[in-house]
Amino acid sequence: MDLHILDHRLRVTCISKSGLQRYTHPLIKLIFLRNRTRCKFFSLTETPENYTVVLDEEGFKELQASEHLQVEGSTWLPLNVVSNGNTSSSSQAAGVTKITKSVIAPLAEQHVSVFMLSTYQTDFILTLVEEFSIFREERGEFLPVHSQDACDGSQRNGRDAAHATVHPVLVPENQFCVMSLDPETLPAIATTLIDVLFYSSSFKEDASADPERIKFFSFPADLLFTSSSGELWRMVRIGGQPLGFDECGIVAQISQPLAESDISAYYISTFSFDHALVPEEDIESVSEMLQTQRKDIST
Amino acid sequence: MDLHILDHRLRVTCISKSGLQRYTHPLIKLIFLRNRTRCKFFSLTETPENYTVVLDEEGFKELQASEHLQVEGSTWLPLNVVSNGNTSSSSQAAGVTKITKSVIAPLAEQHVSVFMLSTYQTDFILTLVEEFSIFREERGEFLPVHSQDACDGSQRNGRDAAHATVHPVLVPENQFCVMSLDPETLPAIATTLIDVLFYSSSFKEDASADPERIKFFSFPADLLFTSSSGELWRMVRIGGQPLGFDECGIVAQISQPLAESDISAYYISTFSFDHALVPEEDIESVSEMLQTQRKDIST
Repeated sequence: MDLHILDHRLRVTCISKSGLQRYTHPLIKLIFLRNRTRCKFFSLTETPENYTVVLDEEGFKELQASEHLQVEGSTWLPLNVVSNGNTSSSSQAAGVTKITKSVIAPLAEQHVSVFMLSTYQTDFILTLVEEFSIFREERGEFLPVHSQDACDGSQRNGRDAAHATVHPVLVPENQFCVMSLDPETLPAIATTLIDVLFYSSSFKEDASADPERIKFFSFPADLLFTSSSGELWRMVRIGGQPLGFDECGIVAQISQPLAESDISAYYISTFSFDHALVPEEDIESVSEMLQTQRKDIST
Repeated sequence: MDLHILDHRLRVTCISKSGLQRYTHPLIKLIFLRNRTRCKFFSLTETPENYTVVLDEEGFKELQASEHLQVEGSTWLPLNVVSNGNTSSSSQAAGVTKITKSVIAPLAEQHVSVFMLSTYQTDFILTLVEEFSIFREERGEFLPVHSQDACDGSQRNGRDAAHATVHPVLVPENQFCVMSLDPETLPAIATTLIDVLFYSSSFKEDASADPERIKFFSFPADLLFTSSSGELWRMVRIGGQPLGFDECGIVAQISQPLAESDISAYYISTFSFDHALVPEEDIESVSEMLQTQRKDIST
């Protein structure tokens, strides 16, 4: 298992629902006309509240400042884990579950805030650049080594991962698909994707109209969507209130019990909330697991 | 030959080059997502100055007012001529040439302002709604009959078609293609078209940088572009100054000499200038013809 620190410096931004129209021009360029832009990392996730756009500095230049664009102040650095075959992991589970023990848990212990972007093929773990400079390997696990000038995360935000707030979770009724797509076929489905991304929601729609079903569409960095196995996924949405960016341990809190039960999960952070996708057949046990965990910690 | 008065009420609008980004969202919907809009007539023409958008009232509602959008005040009514096989016309020429004698000349004589939109398959002749209510057929030609309350065009704008200003013409070096496209294949070339339409010109580009070559792209109402015969076309651009909308006889002025020589022509009016496309092999004789005409009238 190799941990790659990718050569991107990323910005996490958020476009309001009513601002989408204004940003259609740069977004279509970033998604469909890759040879028109020097942007190499792009991710867009629609939630009922807004659109979270994560992109590198080159892409960020394409987004003109306006009252519809919120920008998280930090620069984030993406890591990803590439399985190189000689892994000792016994887990067959997909997604974030596979890297919980090796990456997610150690980062939480080190009080490193993470912003997760799972895609079909890999999981991007975005961390704040200033929080570490070197990783060391220890018994097959990668541990970040804080640089001298980085302050201790637990002091910085006054919270300890083990005693982090346990956030309420919501389990909407929707079923989700997780897919991958050959970039070559992107042009062929461009109008369909444009329709879904830019025209499928009415701006006047009340986001809270049906709390049982939520609109969620994530278009990842390098790959996309083609129904793989017909498998359907259900969502666990984390956070009753917007989560913010400085709390650490949220991903670990969700992914550790999943890893213990060897349940696959895709984990997608957005500007306001976090989202875990788990196989449909596991949603009840996951939901129960997380409710129990919540009770255990709060008592 | 049947003259159809189409059931659309059209607006002629103009988007500035720097305003294109702002109108990308509604334009992509109008062009590619036809089932999202009730707009049934749409045409977009890019010239070095701006984008001319002609669309029906339903489509017009999609364009929010802004300083980047100019709207011609009138409502225009489109006519088109459908050849039903039993035409007595001896001409084999395509486009506006075929309808010069039967439609364009009579309209000019009646002082009816026309705005032309040639497409691969048909020519749309836009006229001001108030200028006529009934057409009468006379020896195979369709003549507009003015309604009682419509004033006489020659009095209204004080100009007579026969003595209309002869506008200077420009013949850029570019070669053009005139094509048709099955609407079914539109999704397949969407990204290419989006690239050409919305991303191929730099906003900072000086429109007059190369007067020998001009940027011109017209996306017609119901059909589009697939190379038919490989034939190439050259352009005659009419007007040294923007032409305005109340002058009549401009189309007739250009199309009559072409009709006399049986030269095919597509004629596309835009917000500022008119454009005739003629077969590449005829450009020199057309250019000469129009220069001679200009001298004849101005002397």
